[in-house]
Amino acid sequence: MLPLRFVKTSSLFSPNILFSNFSPKQPRTTLLSLITTKQLRSQSPMASSYTTSSHASKLLFRQLFEKESSTYTYLLADISHPDKPALLIDPVDKTVDRDLCVIKELGLKLVYALNTHVHADHVTGTGLIKSKVLGVKSIISKASGSKADIFVGTGDTVYFGNLFLEVRATPGHTLGCVTYVTGDGPDQPNPRMAFTGDAILIRGCGRTDFQGGNSTQLYNSVHSQIFTLPKDTLIYPAHDYKGFTVSTVGEEMQHNPRLTKDEEAFKNIMENLNLSYPKMMDIAVPANLVCGMQDLTSKS
Amino acid sequence: MLPLRFVKTSSLFSPNILFSNFSPKQPRTTLLSLITTKQLRSQSPMASSYTTSSHASKLLFRQLFEKESSTYTYLLADISHPDKPALLIDPVDKTVDRDLCVIKELGLKLVYALNTHVHADHVTGTGLIKSKVLGVKSIISKASGSKADIFVGTGDTVYFGNLFLEVRATPGHTLGCVTYVTGDGPDQPNPRMAFTGDAILIRGCGRTDFQGGNSTQLYNSVHSQIFTLPKDTLIYPAHDYKGFTVSTVGEEMQHNPRLTKDEEAFKNIMENLNLSYPKMMDIAVPANLVCGMQDLTSKS
Repeated sequence: MLPLRFVKTSSLFSPNILFSNFSPKQPRTTLLSLITTKQLRSQSPMASSYTTSSHASKLLFRQLFEKESSTYTYLLADISHPDKPALLIDPVDKTVDRDLCVIKELGLKLVYALNTHVHADHVTGTGLIKSKVLGVKSIISKASGSKADIFVGTGDTVYFGNLFLEVRATPGHTLGCVTYVTGDGPDQPNPRMAFTGDAILIRGCGRTDFQGGNSTQLYNSVHSQIFTLPKDTLIYPAHDYKGFTVSTVGEEMQHNPRLTKDEEAFKNIMENLNLSYPKMMDIAVPANLVCGMQDLTSKS
Repeated sequence: MLPLRFVKTSSLFSPNILFSNFSPKQPRTTLLSLITTKQLRSQSPMASSYTTSSHASKLLFRQLFEKESSTYTYLLADISHPDKPALLIDPVDKTVDRDLCVIKELGLKLVYALNTHVHADHVTGTGLIKSKVLGVKSIISKASGSKADIFVGTGDTVYFGNLFLEVRATPGHTLGCVTYVTGDGPDQPNPRMAFTGDAILIRGCGRTDFQGGNSTQLYNSVHSQIFTLPKDTLIYPAHDYKGFTVSTVGEEMQHNPRLTKDEEAFKNIMENLNLSYPKMMDIAVPANLVCGMQDLTSKS
């Protein structure tokens, strides 16, 4: 079955997401929520779009930093698509205006605001973004327990133009953590890029002592869902506190001081971190459970 | 004349730099300081090295951040070369151990520590690096007035393995500012990458009120040396204070709030910034004029 690759992302009302249960060993089956005439027309030159596109010419990628909580927000857009559809991963409330300004200047159309999990150290910018840009849909895992427009889990894909992200459940830091990974295919970014949230950080990992955190689960998530990706896959975490911006799967498999240990040693490390209570936790978690802004979520 | 592309970077004693006066309209002429038998042998398969290499597989690139002074340090290495020769642009004294740890973990051989200029807001890590890694050569512009092992100016190229940086003098923030630009060629990173120091920042530029700064000169530097690069050239500045990590020449030509103005308006902006005296200036500038550490420089 020929997958439907082109999704119209300009409509304010159509759910602009393509869900597919993918498996590397099986042909991808797809369900497109709404197909318009425009979308069907877009499919005719599909063959050429697969052969001529490359990472550099197709994906616009920006890593953005919020200094106070040391949070990375990621902007991805398919700039070879006429609409230049874009998404933000883990936006922060304090830097929403910066992010929307860049999106406007670059002529992108923001369609999704995704969260890797319910953050405890900052308030998500998702609600604020929805109040400022009509039509943007919020995405988070069902297991997060948070409100959102669209819930995702392992096996789902999120399309923006001709590019897509795979969703991989990576619980352990919180119960609802997911990792978004750029697609596997000749028209997708190469090397692949994994937005790991707090599941794995550069030479570290997220704590596992609240929000349904579980060190055994985190260990298994990283080893089964992240360390099984190609070794040159770029790791883009939700935070960095030492000034690193990127790592790779191969690098963390070799040098991560926690996750290179065996499961028992890892559990022991995680149970003895003696970290202080996150100062933003009691503000951030309740807010993030309702997408950053309760009123806006209920109106959307 | 066939340019000599392969430079041996493993020797601690040979000056590992290839100077060439380049011009887009003329064949590149080169002067190699020292050619060993190994280097000459390396040239025989040159043709194939031009056709098969790509940005992703050849250049290892890391952007590293020092939070206190909001300084970016850049690590570049040719990982397709057997020695994996690497260089650091604008290392900071406080993050030298972090940088050297990554270099060691990645199996790279650090050969150069470059500065875009004599910084006023942090002490360069160059001297400290030289004390910790034997054989590393410091590079800065002659016009900077600073001590260094190798002085560069417009038209020079700095080779690391099979990759190289072009040097472009971009005075104006200081008298000795240079921009390092990745090479122009099929075996070089595409799009090109410009390490602009403080000449141009993302949506801004460096101040021009000390260290031989001159707003007219800065305006002309950016317009003649940076805005003439291909529009997709990535701009990697020495600092960012808002959480941006990268821009492009095309983006800054369109959206830089200062440098899109005409020269008179730009001068007027720069003369009315009313910035406070840099708190690190009286410590950083004298230290940086001697490579960060006077004793080490004189011993090298």
